Amino acid sequence: MGKALAVSPLAPASFPDLPVIDGVEFAATQAGVRYAGRTDVMLARLAAGTAIAGVFTRSATRSAAVLDCQEKTGHPDNGPAAIIVNSGNSNAFTGKTGVESVHAVTSSVAQTLGLEESRVFSSSTGVIGEPLPHERITAKLEELKDKLSADGIQEAARAIMTTDTFPKGAMAEVQIDGKTVKIAGIAKGSGMIAPDMATMLVYIFTDAQADQKKLQKLLSNLTDVTFNCITVDSDTSTSDTLILAATGASGVNVDGNEAFEKALQEVMLDLAHQVVRDGEGATKFVEVNVTGAASDGDARTHAMAIANSPLIKTAVAGEDPNWGRVVMAIGKSGAAADRDLLSIRFGDILVAENGWVSPSYKEDLGANYMKGQYLAINVDIGLGKGKSTVWTCDLTHGYISINADYRS
Amino acid sequence: MGKALAVSPLAPASFPDLPVIDGVEFAATQAGVRYAGRTDVMLARLAAGTAIAGVFTRSATRSAAVLDCQEKTGHPDNGPAAIIVNSGNSNAFTGKTGVESVHAVTSSVAQTLGLEESRVFSSSTGVIGEPLPHERITAKLEELKDKLSADGIQEAARAIMTTDTFPKGAMAEVQIDGKTVKIAGIAKGSGMIAPDMATMLVYIFTDAQADQKKLQKLLSNLTDVTFNCITVDSDTSTSDTLILAATGASGVNVDGNEAFEKALQEVMLDLAHQVVRDGEGATKFVEVNVTGAASDGDARTHAMAIANSPLIKTAVAGEDPNWGRVVMAIGKSGAAADRDLLSIRFGDILVAENGWVSPSYKEDLGANYMKGQYLAINVDIGLGKGKSTVWTCDLTHGYISINADYRS
Repeated sequence: MGKALAVSPLAPASFPDLPVIDGVEFAATQAGVRYAGRTDVMLARLAAGTAIAGVFTRSATRSAAVLDCQEKTGHPDNGPAAIIVNSGNSNAFTGKTGVESVHAVTSSVAQTLGLEESRVFSSSTGVIGEPLPHERITAKLEELKDKLSADGIQEAARAIMTTDTFPKGAMAEVQIDGKTVKIAGIAKGSGMIAPDMATMLVYIFTDAQADQKKLQKLLSNLTDVTFNCITVDSDTSTSDTLILAATGASGVNVDGNEAFEKALQEVMLDLAHQVVRDGEGATKFVEVNVTGAASDGDARTHAMAIANSPLIKTAVAGEDPNWGRVVMAIGKSGAAADRDLLSIRFGDILVAENGWVSPSYKEDLGANYMKGQYLAINVDIGLGKGKSTVWTCDLTHGYISINADYRS
Repeated sequence: MGKALAVSPLAPASFPDLPVIDGVEFAATQAGVRYAGRTDVMLARLAAGTAIAGVFTRSATRSAAVLDCQEKTGHPDNGPAAIIVNSGNSNAFTGKTGVESVHAVTSSVAQTLGLEESRVFSSSTGVIGEPLPHERITAKLEELKDKLSADGIQEAARAIMTTDTFPKGAMAEVQIDGKTVKIAGIAKGSGMIAPDMATMLVYIFTDAQADQKKLQKLLSNLTDVTFNCITVDSDTSTSDTLILAATGASGVNVDGNEAFEKALQEVMLDLAHQVVRDGEGATKFVEVNVTGAASDGDARTHAMAIANSPLIKTAVAGEDPNWGRVVMAIGKSGAAADRDLLSIRFGDILVAENGWVSPSYKEDLGANYMKGQYLAINVDIGLGKGKSTVWTCDLTHGYISINADYRS
């Protein structure tokens, strides 16, 4: 760290104006876990009645904090709760010491706030394989408790940043039965992973009232069409964590409510897109739409092959309308395709069809299109009705610089 | 093209001294398919009695020439034969015109050399999606025929280069029943693919006598432990082609002969390593050894996850002993692993074990090791007896420059 990265050219103009969520308070402080001169710990306190759901990395080498959170979200409960997150050290691959650090933090938070330890959820993000100096965190708990306030969410978003170049927030409000239900979320992450620094962490808060098991199912389903549809570099963190807390303070039950589901999906997609827009070295945001595949699964396989191809991502960086590389990616993906049935569009520009470049296509059209910051690669496989959309960014010298030069 | 790339720092000092293979003659010429001022077509003539085996890309969008070669190697025959290869244009994704171009070239070669068209094998490498100006090739066939000579293999290796920074050749000789059997091979390829330019093509010649079906089986098996164990950027060409021609001129039958198999494997591995050593932008050659996996398949999955990880490849470029990224790659691979049973070595240096950094490890040791040009990442999964070795190179600014800036 220490190196100040320029803010991504794809960053939003400013942090959004997030609503206060009744039943949630936030605090952030400088604990000096690794970084100096910035906040690096955030605490959220959740009122009694809060249902908590979570989705976590499937990595076989996931961290002790992830395993602990998974355990705790597996037991429905709605007592008062807390979330504590530090940046600077991921406490991943730290053996039994790592498990002890998680316990040290969560038990201290439980004691300080008067909660059950089974209701304290922790995350850590930063360097792998170094013991977490958890006493620096626990030493700050009284201060954090005193600072808790309903409108501290932006400071919380800043405290969890690592290689992120901007704090990430999103919100939605939805009217149900004449009442307003509010959703506010924050996220960090700037590669799918850079294990030293760039795990994806997401915390979403709502004053909706929900059954924990139904909330968990909804969160898992929506993750498949939001966070699981983005890729920066095809790498997967040992610590990725998404937690959704529903305080119930609005008094509106949202179980099975479509308007709420849609609003939650919007917030999740907004945060997911912000993670891509802060992709390490990213200069362009790319949507990949695949239609006409033999199945939705095949469509996703093709879309991810395109979104993860280093050759396509470098061509995008170079503003090169290199549709041949799209053909290549479809060919290698392993999912069904027929060269002569494919069609490829850059935005609305038909580039290739019937197994060849389109007669109407002019290289100038493609080259001009590629100069944009927000690009769409649209492929119709021509075999069936399967479809998938995923989002990624380009692969630039910036990515190499950040990741080749980071730790040294 | 036109841009002269600096020779890879990992290139061999010189092209090897390849033996003449009785029954094979070579010629190369400047046909101006796309490049000016260099050779771009090579012809090999194979004597009657030659058995020909082939292994081809499994891409669903493979080119017309690949489909034609696959068809032809599927019918055992040992009449006189020819191989014709052009660089500059891959004739891939060119629809029915592409099929016609393949026929135009192979039928002209058959006529010029007095062969059956079913015994003429063609390959094309270069830009995708532009019609192959096959008349430029066929116009040169008489000249190529006149130039055919037994010692033209190095010129052939040069004529098939695209973004390659050096021509690739390898040889072996093996004593069987008091006689010498010779093997000589050439290859091109400098990414697993850059569809504009960098398909992998390999042609291996031997004076051994072999049954075509047995030779085909041997070639497929050896490909699994040589060419299928290298990766530059995880991308797969629409045109990858490997052809083995056994002229039989030595009079030595090698069916089932282990010494021959071993020698052939050595030649294939040597060529495969040269392709990695010419990986686009490569500055370091990396061997990844995985042992102790639940199965050989799992070991390969782990090894490829490590070898293809952009975060590991950039860390290698930056000479950063970032073993945390190795833990990450194992975790995400999808194959079985237990965080606390892993051990990781850089060369002989034990870095991590028992779920944590090794007590004996000092960052200086790792940092010093990473300065080498030839590196080994050795991982023991600690679960079983499965093992796999794959080879790759680092991911550098050079890769981005070559692929982001190439066509434009």
